[in-house]
Amino acid sequence: MKRINDSSGNSTNSASDSGYRGEVLKVLNKAGAAVGDLVKITTKGGTVFEGVVMPRPGISTDEMHIVVKQKSGYNVGIDAKQGVSIAVLKKGSAKAGGSQLGAMTATPRRVVKGLPAVSFLSTGGTIASKVDYKTGAVSPALSAQDLYDVVPELGNVANIRAEILCNILSENMSPERWSMIADAVGKRVLEGGLDGVVIAHGTDTMHYTSAALSFALRGLPIPVVLVGSQRSSDRPSSDAAMNLTNAVTAAGKGPFAEVVVCMHGEMGDSYSLCHRGTKVRKMHTSRRDTFVSINAKPIARVEEGNVKMLVSEYAPRDLKRELRVENKFDEKVGLVKTYPGMMSDLVDAFVDKRYHGIVLEGTGLGHVPEAIYGSIKRAAEEDVVIVMTSQCISGRVIMNVYRTGRELLAMGVIPGEDMLPETALVKLMWLLGKGESHDKIRELIRVNFTGEITSVSSVESSIPEAIE
Amino acid sequence: MKRINDSSGNSTNSASDSGYRGEVLKVLNKAGAAVGDLVKITTKGGTVFEGVVMPRPGISTDEMHIVVKQKSGYNVGIDAKQGVSIAVLKKGSAKAGGSQLGAMTATPRRVVKGLPAVSFLSTGGTIASKVDYKTGAVSPALSAQDLYDVVPELGNVANIRAEILCNILSENMSPERWSMIADAVGKRVLEGGLDGVVIAHGTDTMHYTSAALSFALRGLPIPVVLVGSQRSSDRPSSDAAMNLTNAVTAAGKGPFAEVVVCMHGEMGDSYSLCHRGTKVRKMHTSRRDTFVSINAKPIARVEEGNVKMLVSEYAPRDLKRELRVENKFDEKVGLVKTYPGMMSDLVDAFVDKRYHGIVLEGTGLGHVPEAIYGSIKRAAEEDVVIVMTSQCISGRVIMNVYRTGRELLAMGVIPGEDMLPETALVKLMWLLGKGESHDKIRELIRVNFTGEITSVSSVESSIPEAIE
Repeated sequence: MKRINDSSGNSTNSASDSGYRGEVLKVLNKAGAAVGDLVKITTKGGTVFEGVVMPRPGISTDEMHIVVKQKSGYNVGIDAKQGVSIAVLKKGSAKAGGSQLGAMTATPRRVVKGLPAVSFLSTGGTIASKVDYKTGAVSPALSAQDLYDVVPELGNVANIRAEILCNILSENMSPERWSMIADAVGKRVLEGGLDGVVIAHGTDTMHYTSAALSFALRGLPIPVVLVGSQRSSDRPSSDAAMNLTNAVTAAGKGPFAEVVVCMHGEMGDSYSLCHRGTKVRKMHTSRRDTFVSINAKPIARVEEGNVKMLVSEYAPRDLKRELRVENKFDEKVGLVKTYPGMMSDLVDAFVDKRYHGIVLEGTGLGHVPEAIYGSIKRAAEEDVVIVMTSQCISGRVIMNVYRTGRELLAMGVIPGEDMLPETALVKLMWLLGKGESHDKIRELIRVNFTGEITSVSSVESSIPEAIE
Repeated sequence: MKRINDSSGNSTNSASDSGYRGEVLKVLNKAGAAVGDLVKITTKGGTVFEGVVMPRPGISTDEMHIVVKQKSGYNVGIDAKQGVSIAVLKKGSAKAGGSQLGAMTATPRRVVKGLPAVSFLSTGGTIASKVDYKTGAVSPALSAQDLYDVVPELGNVANIRAEILCNILSENMSPERWSMIADAVGKRVLEGGLDGVVIAHGTDTMHYTSAALSFALRGLPIPVVLVGSQRSSDRPSSDAAMNLTNAVTAAGKGPFAEVVVCMHGEMGDSYSLCHRGTKVRKMHTSRRDTFVSINAKPIARVEEGNVKMLVSEYAPRDLKRELRVENKFDEKVGLVKTYPGMMSDLVDAFVDKRYHGIVLEGTGLGHVPEAIYGSIKRAAEEDVVIVMTSQCISGRVIMNVYRTGRELLAMGVIPGEDMLPETALVKLMWLLGKGESHDKIRELIRVNFTGEITSVSSVESSIPEAIE
């Protein structure tokens, strides 16, 4: 996979070509520094920054800051008005970080015959964000069309219909928005003529959304692929280009019809993995291969334009299958992670506020401190549906091994089998949203709807390796 | 590592040798079934159980149940009084599950010259529990001395002084008990003459306790090794024997003087790993190699009686170092895992109840839904110390990348660096317990006391591999 921002050219540009103006441009020119050069900048206060001079976006009106990409991969904006000394350590390529800026203007697309039709729905997040060159921070900005334009390879993969559904960082994603996204996907699918759907989404809560869509989109005929990026798409180290290309490939020609997360399979830019939407979790704050299948194998591998299935059990692509959108979620569900010394306050707060369900993230096989038994009993008596999961993350909740587990079962706590806590939370919101009786929900929690529960026999072969 | 319950003998025993009596014994004898045989038992109701006949413990007075170990590894007690038919599928060794029962009586120990002196403190958990042969469930029972007797290899590793501190399942471990354990360890160490300390502990919350002891035992001169077992020690599949032997080896001759968790390094019985007490987490509900170092490497490997250091930076064993026990923990600290759709109720509940600290388990680099900003602002204004960690588990909290992270910093939320949420919780309880001012604590949270924070430069090499 060739990176979109690579450049084999070696010519140098003056700093003015990439957005620097006024005082800052004078300072850079005086030092002989251009975009792409490795420089050492010393401020009046004596602070030293070393990094590659980054271009300024066209929209910038700020004439005070020099932006350099540091070795850490993070950009920093240095106020040149305060007076700085600049030493050029190494001349670089002008294209180091700037090639995509020229391409940022929308290129009209033509439909290429023979390519699959993919709906590209943007919701926000890093994959749709850019660096603020004043502060070095990242904020949501790019449109789906912008992304499409900066990754020209996509033109060879699919005919894309890009739309923006919303533009939020994924920590602000909510059950209400899951409903909206499910509704939008449903409408596009029911209109027909699509081979797959890609949803650009922030990575923070992508696995909650993928679980929500897995439950909400019943009888899916085609793939729905969530994709994101761990690095802003206008930065040379971004993983956005490969992630986007592989996600569109998976949506366009993947043989499955499930909701998946498609992200980097390892730290390099070699392949992506498609993780089942209910079995995936963000497991690292910053690594590109942060998404990991838990208690399951990834269902497919995408590499060099090919989609290879890694499991035999999956819902196959089938255009005759009839999609039903069941997209109501009950927000009155609480998540409680237990810990030594915890008191009844948390569970009590949920019961006092008339929550309808609680997902416990207990320890080990599904245990909680006896100190909170009273609050759990009370919650059960007030008809709150209580589901047990494990903060171990991997493995299965088995509550009949220890006396304490059996006591919780007797109180009415439902074992969440091998469901991720996050998936159990979304499932309980969904079941409550369907308006079923609480007794019925206590049964349905243990029923496998969309691959969220793995049977006991298949667990041994799919448990993850130890991390050292 | 040879398993303690292995037997090369092939003789068969009658069922009466291993605790079966009365009616049940008659039924077994009539079928020609003995302890260790693989049998198929069909109940009057038509339920079929297949498994190996297990011995009955001497203390049992129940004359109704036949206990078989099923293929799943779990024991089941079958009521023979109801009438059962038994078919012997395969004759087995009488020692299959019974060898440890005869050894269960205490053998007086003599001190062997030249062996290290190890204090063995039992707190409870599976490593100190046994199967209830009536219900098939597990409950805490064995004393430290019992364990010492069932693993005779320990006699070649160290002179052990075994004591019982308490006998609880680890989900009921509490900050108060951490204080008690730290106090007990401190007393034994200060008395002198010890080469190391082993603490038998339930696995559910062992990593919380290992973090607590890491903070409480300042200037430790010798190793303190926590050990547990994922399978009850009176069952043939138990990992207790190897875990105990390797933990005592690590305590007796490990060159480090830190608090560690010493458990199976992989699924087989080949070696154990010593994980730094503040960097370890239980990552699987049932696997033997459930404990994993996060954002760090395990510090040592124990195999065939040898301890091999895996890192160069560690506190070396030093009998001249002066131990200080700082074992006060403030229990008024809450843990909040954030999720989409969450409301202010959780944080509000903690503030209303006058908690002193809150550890947030945010998403990604350290974010929370904007919907709870109000409650966080209010908590900060009421001088609650708020620390941010990530539910990704691996990686570092970096709050100056996104606008939202910077907004949380501005409210006074303290980034927990690359600390595990569990470790940050224990650390905040400990810092508050010391009685420092909240402003001082906001500084100290980011200071590395005992390996709980890894410097940025060393992170890249220690991040875990992806799990597939």
